[in-house]
Amino acid sequence: TSRAGAAPMQEMFVYELNEKDRNSPAYLPFSLKFDIGKGLPSGALGDLVPFTNKLYDGTLQTRLGITAGMCILIKHYPEKNGHRYEAVFSFYFGDYGHISVQGSYLTFEDSTLAITGGSGIFTGVYGVVKLHQIVYPTKLFYTFQLQGIPPLPSELTRTPVPPSPSVRASPSAMRTRPGSVAPNFTD
Amino acid sequence: TSRAGAAPMQEMFVYELNEKDRNSPAYLPFSLKFDIGKGLPSGALGDLVPFTNKLYDGTLQTRLGITAGMCILIKHYPEKNGHRYEAVFSFYFGDYGHISVQGSYLTFEDSTLAITGGSGIFTGVYGVVKLHQIVYPTKLFYTFQLQGIPPLPSELTRTPVPPSPSVRASPSAMRTRPGSVAPNFTD
Amino acid sequence: TSRAGAAPMQEMFVYELNEKDRNSPAYLPFSLKFDIGKGLPSGALGDLVPFTNKLYDGTLQTRLGITAGMCILIKHYPEKNGHRYEAVFSFYFGDYGHISVQGSYLTFEDSTLAITGGSGIFTGVYGVVKLHQIVYPTKLFYTFQLQGIPPLPSELTRTPVPPSPSVRASPSAMRTRPGSVAPNFTD
Repeated sequence: TSRAGAAPMQEMFVYELNEKDRNSPAYLPFSLKFDIGKGLPSGALGDLVPFTNKLYDGTLQTRLGITAGMCILIKHYPEKNGHRYEAVFSFYFGDYGHISVQGSYLTFEDSTLAITGGSGIFTGVYGVVKLHQIVYPTKLFYTFQLQGIPPLPSELTRTPVPPSPSVRASPSAMRTRPGSVAPNFTD
Repeated sequence: TSRAGAAPMQEMFVYELNEKDRNSPAYLPFSLKFDIGKGLPSGALGDLVPFTNKLYDGTLQTRLGITAGMCILIKHYPEKNGHRYEAVFSFYFGDYGHISVQGSYLTFEDSTLAITGGSGIFTGVYGVVKLHQIVYPTKLFYTFQLQGIPPLPSELTRTPVPPSPSVRASPSAMRTRPGSVAPNFTD
Repeated sequence: TSRAGAAPMQEMFVYELNEKDRNSPAYLPFSLKFDIGKGLPSGALGDLVPFTNKLYDGTLQTRLGITAGMCILIKHYPEKNGHRYEAVFSFYFGDYGHISVQGSYLTFEDSTLAITGGSGIFTGVYGVVKLHQIVYPTKLFYTFQLQGIPPLPSELTRTPVPPSPSVRASPSAMRTRPGSVAPNFTD
């Protein structure tokens, strides 16, 4: 009766890296709340943050595509020196298709987002994705727990490099060299 | 062949209350359409409304968490003295997890939104949620019709207090006293 | 094990037409990037585009309802003279219910979006929708590939008019005459 327990679960690991070359994020400080001392938005309900970063597979040897979407600032937690965002975005994987997600992005701890849909090899997908922040806000590691889809291609299920602050994509993946990119990788 | 009819449906009732202590909503009048007579935005396509309110269980004895997301103003219906919004938001229930939804929020009548995904005990959920507005825009009553997940814990399926304009959370739930909150309730 | 392959797939065709009578879209140029030569926003991350257009069935004989949602500008591709948007919106079909979707809207080529949920006769739906742009940005043709729901009513599965730049809704559908509208068509 519960599809959550009935269908086999497949894990997929990806890195989202902001390499500072996409003019992302676009921080829109519409709350009009600013921290005068820091000369920065303090981060309050009303701020919106469209973003798009690069996606690599878990081995960091293959450029897969991009993320695309928006974070909606919900609340500042002064005691945690951090913020809660509602995140609505998609992961694009070139010809493989895409996965859309929604849930919390907390700048101070890990979170779990819902998978809301997918296309291509991800058509019919459901499940969750665990967001692990390595370096705020430029390096994130995601663990997808995918259900409802056929077995993933082996290129997408290789054993990942363990997340650490020093991780970076391989030079040939960064340069999107043939052999280091997904088919028609999204850019 | 239709999963809509195949899986057992579970109902869950929650109250969303705006107790005026979260600086919500953040009305962003980007349509630049204003009603001069009222001195207020008239409400037209272009206005955006990020929001976050408190969630209580149907008995109003337990603080569960918060809502978080955005309403996109779509259209003003002068003859109904109301508005259509496209609502994209999530319900957070502490350690129980979360449910994401999308659909209409009409200020003048009830609506039904789609459940787009969930995490925690709601992983794999699908179905709809019925939105009933009690007092605009501060008191709403939701009836979730959940499919695809294991039986809910009994704490979440108690018989609700019938919605009425006078409903309010119990004092101990409002004060988030132990025994009156969900485990690690979201705030 | 894969629900994508297990459930029968039903196709449904709809036209989305901007007849210039809904003040849509509301282009919000928050990137503050403008093309001085054209006197227009150049289209960069930060721009937001709430929209709502009319929906007709594939035969163009029946007004079904509206679309409602937002496009988030992600990237300008100068070499393609076009843009990538992340689209989050719903299709409303009157008493039939609604379908929510998320994915890419590319101004220069077709794309496939994920179905994230639905209500009414679309409760429990999953799958994808193929977006084919006929005339930018006023005429679009969608092919829904729907799974997880009972057989659609025959009114929604008629053989569509092939998409072409000259397509337009029938006069009686445009005028929402009885017999040319879905039950309680959304407007």
